[in-house]
Amino acid sequence: MSATPAYAELTRIYTRLYRFQHLGSIVGWDRNAMMPPKGNAARAAAEAELHALIHRTRTAPELKTLIAAAEAEPLDDIARANLREIRRDWRDANALPERLVEEKTLAGAKCEHAWRSQRAANDWEGFLENFRPVVKLAREEAQLLADDSGLSRYDALMDRFEPGVRASDVDRIFAEVRQWLPALIDDARKKQAQDSITLPRGPFPVVAQRALNREVMALLGFDFEAGRLDESAHPFSGGVPEDVRLTTRYSEDDFARSLLGTIHETGHARYEQNLPREWLGQPLGTARSYGLHESQSLSCEMQLARSRPFVGLLVPLLKKHFGDQPAFDADNLYRLWTRVKPGFIRVDADEVTYPAHVILRYEIERPLVEGEIEPEDIPALWAEKMQSLLGLDTRGNFKDGCLQDVHWSDGSFGYFPCYTLGAMYAAQWFAVIRRATPDFDARIAAGDLSPVFDWQREFVWSQGCRWTTPELVQRASGEALNPAHFRSHLERRYLRK
Amino acid sequence: MSATPAYAELTRIYTRLYRFQHLGSIVGWDRNAMMPPKGNAARAAAEAELHALIHRTRTAPELKTLIAAAEAEPLDDIARANLREIRRDWRDANALPERLVEEKTLAGAKCEHAWRSQRAANDWEGFLENFRPVVKLAREEAQLLADDSGLSRYDALMDRFEPGVRASDVDRIFAEVRQWLPALIDDARKKQAQDSITLPRGPFPVVAQRALNREVMALLGFDFEAGRLDESAHPFSGGVPEDVRLTTRYSEDDFARSLLGTIHETGHARYEQNLPREWLGQPLGTARSYGLHESQSLSCEMQLARSRPFVGLLVPLLKKHFGDQPAFDADNLYRLWTRVKPGFIRVDADEVTYPAHVILRYEIERPLVEGEIEPEDIPALWAEKMQSLLGLDTRGNFKDGCLQDVHWSDGSFGYFPCYTLGAMYAAQWFAVIRRATPDFDARIAAGDLSPVFDWQREFVWSQGCRWTTPELVQRASGEALNPAHFRSHLERRYLRK
Repeated sequence: MSATPAYAELTRIYTRLYRFQHLGSIVGWDRNAMMPPKGNAARAAAEAELHALIHRTRTAPELKTLIAAAEAEPLDDIARANLREIRRDWRDANALPERLVEEKTLAGAKCEHAWRSQRAANDWEGFLENFRPVVKLAREEAQLLADDSGLSRYDALMDRFEPGVRASDVDRIFAEVRQWLPALIDDARKKQAQDSITLPRGPFPVVAQRALNREVMALLGFDFEAGRLDESAHPFSGGVPEDVRLTTRYSEDDFARSLLGTIHETGHARYEQNLPREWLGQPLGTARSYGLHESQSLSCEMQLARSRPFVGLLVPLLKKHFGDQPAFDADNLYRLWTRVKPGFIRVDADEVTYPAHVILRYEIERPLVEGEIEPEDIPALWAEKMQSLLGLDTRGNFKDGCLQDVHWSDGSFGYFPCYTLGAMYAAQWFAVIRRATPDFDARIAAGDLSPVFDWQREFVWSQGCRWTTPELVQRASGEALNPAHFRSHLERRYLRK
Repeated sequence: MSATPAYAELTRIYTRLYRFQHLGSIVGWDRNAMMPPKGNAARAAAEAELHALIHRTRTAPELKTLIAAAEAEPLDDIARANLREIRRDWRDANALPERLVEEKTLAGAKCEHAWRSQRAANDWEGFLENFRPVVKLAREEAQLLADDSGLSRYDALMDRFEPGVRASDVDRIFAEVRQWLPALIDDARKKQAQDSITLPRGPFPVVAQRALNREVMALLGFDFEAGRLDESAHPFSGGVPEDVRLTTRYSEDDFARSLLGTIHETGHARYEQNLPREWLGQPLGTARSYGLHESQSLSCEMQLARSRPFVGLLVPLLKKHFGDQPAFDADNLYRLWTRVKPGFIRVDADEVTYPAHVILRYEIERPLVEGEIEPEDIPALWAEKMQSLLGLDTRGNFKDGCLQDVHWSDGSFGYFPCYTLGAMYAAQWFAVIRRATPDFDARIAAGDLSPVFDWQREFVWSQGCRWTTPELVQRASGEALNPAHFRSHLERRYLRK
């Protein structure tokens, strides 16, 4: 008999959960990428049955006893880290009463469903009606999670996405960015004002785009023996670490959106494909956080793909798949893909203005969750912050303003900071990698991406959930998250003559 | 509270099972049609976990009590039929002790795995070594099922595939066919001896074949809003009734194999897509039997697709997708697709010689299961029967003889008769349909397939498991299974001047 019977039993239960989740991931991918419309009702019923099973497994009363018993057992560091993650998962699943989970799901689904047409109709008042209960329930949720964890309410929500990162950290970092970002945007735009850009001319046949995307994924190290690229209306990265399923969407007018989107998803995929094999099946073997995941997608899309050396690598592939044209000049494409232009819409934003969109949302959702502001205060705050951060007037334009994102409609508060934390982690990784690789740009230009991926493998991918996010950042880069690296990256790319 | 609490609880349990099986079907389809190779280990573990869950659900001790209690409750005919099917399913799941199920699985997997190379090596002696335990366990299984059901041993095995059909029926029917089939084969070959046939000339591009197959599936009424056609190494019909997944395989030399295979699978698919919606989720709402399923695939492939009127419908589609060529003459294609030629291999056999392959296997596997012959007797029996049925000498050629099928290697005894029962049901259906539709051939030639499918919908598809197979045959056609219809069909198609 094992010296750690409770811990051993926990790992068996979590292995079973991992396998149930595998089934859920694959049928979920299928629903989005393959399923014909009339399959929907039966699929929804089957998925609900599976989710109920997973929920029952995660909330079985014996788990509480087992976790307490395991914590008293003699465990090595690895097992102890896994047990910490098991406790996190258990807390996530058990902190909220069934009643609240159901009310949240219903209110979120109702609000999100109506939002789809209300957004198009610019109907803020209509949205508000469904949104108030969502906020009320999110506050209740945050309070319960806070009581349970000892964190503040917003911290408790954010901890589900970015473990160990606190609003006080985000406040400090975003306040700092707010100091220099508007001026940096202005300077970049002034510097770019005289640039002449030739736009690529389509059509770009879907078959050629598909082949191009696959070739670029291979260049970025995606393992096609352990994953696929398919198509779906809303591109996503799904599947399981052993079999990663990416999707994209094609428009024959524009190859770049699908290509850059696929590069972004490939960053997520490489993290999943390279999680530590020996821990797979346990919480310890999963990706650390949403912010770190975003650091991987943005390492590929922003740090690599929109760099001048990498654009140089892409040009021959574009010519191979689409034939030559004047726009396929590396300097021209680089100018096009690093163009800075403040706009209303977050998902269309460039690398430099994107953080402004995130800071704005964070500065609204945090006081909203904490009860310092009310849902009806949002439009005025939005307008004021868009003006101060990006110099844009969005008054009355809810559609392209506070109604543009899906996140709030279903109550996913605490997620937005991950996008910009991810961009900052990525910049910090590349600062370390560049320091260790004096000929970095030359190696990328020569198609040798190993300085990037060898480092990610050692310090991020292989670590799974061994550390909290701040611990991982410290171990990987020798310092805490430091937005100065992000600033230097932007200055190097956007301001250097 | 319901007046039928036990029955109501059973339906809830079976709805849950149906949903678990939905997950299994979709991930099984994915494994065969989509999954990259490195996904295999994690998928196998996830599927095994699901199958263990399904097994636990089907063998939960409370089921026995619930079924007994439900049988004493006041139920209408529909509920009573569903309860009969629930009992069938329960018996299937519970008749065998765990130990035997495991031994069977292991012995079957070992024998089948080795068979893959032993077949190629013509290694009967090597096969025999793994096959003996498979037969021993099948006999044990048959005895337990027989004890449990009161059927004979072979009947008990066959009842899992074709409920209500007994070896005594099959004996009588196959003995009758044996009387006239060899002469019919000879006569057909004499009649065809002078036919001149022009062979189609490829290549037939995969893209064009795919488009052709989809168009023919639509012509046959396949609902693409409730199913898909994809590709896999071993074509199959999978998915769930609400979302049927067919696969095929393409060779650019030969479009007919994929086309006729797809038409065959479409017959299976239409059965599934048209099962009674109000019973879906319960055993009553599933397809009745393997033989009836085969009656649907063969209705499409043999009765329809290889008929002269239907070939006439296909010709313009062939020309549309492949361009014109001399072979695309309707009479020529019809001659090609109804060519009779005795051969060694069952899966390559034409419609007329196919039953001989099945009769031969039945005449061997029945005494084998009943203990009247031993595995080492098979080659001599095989050679003797191939000679008497098809006039072919297979002595020493195990590869193209008794080693050719996968069925025996994993112990699936009792399945073979379904193939020919299916062909006979299909002929019987078409006899009824023709009788009710005086202008049948003209309507098919004009592209109106409603006489066929309206009938199948009313008498087969919509009936689910309402009746046993013999009851369904009687209700649908006014008589028991009568091989005279199959004989008339063959005579009309192959002997008529």
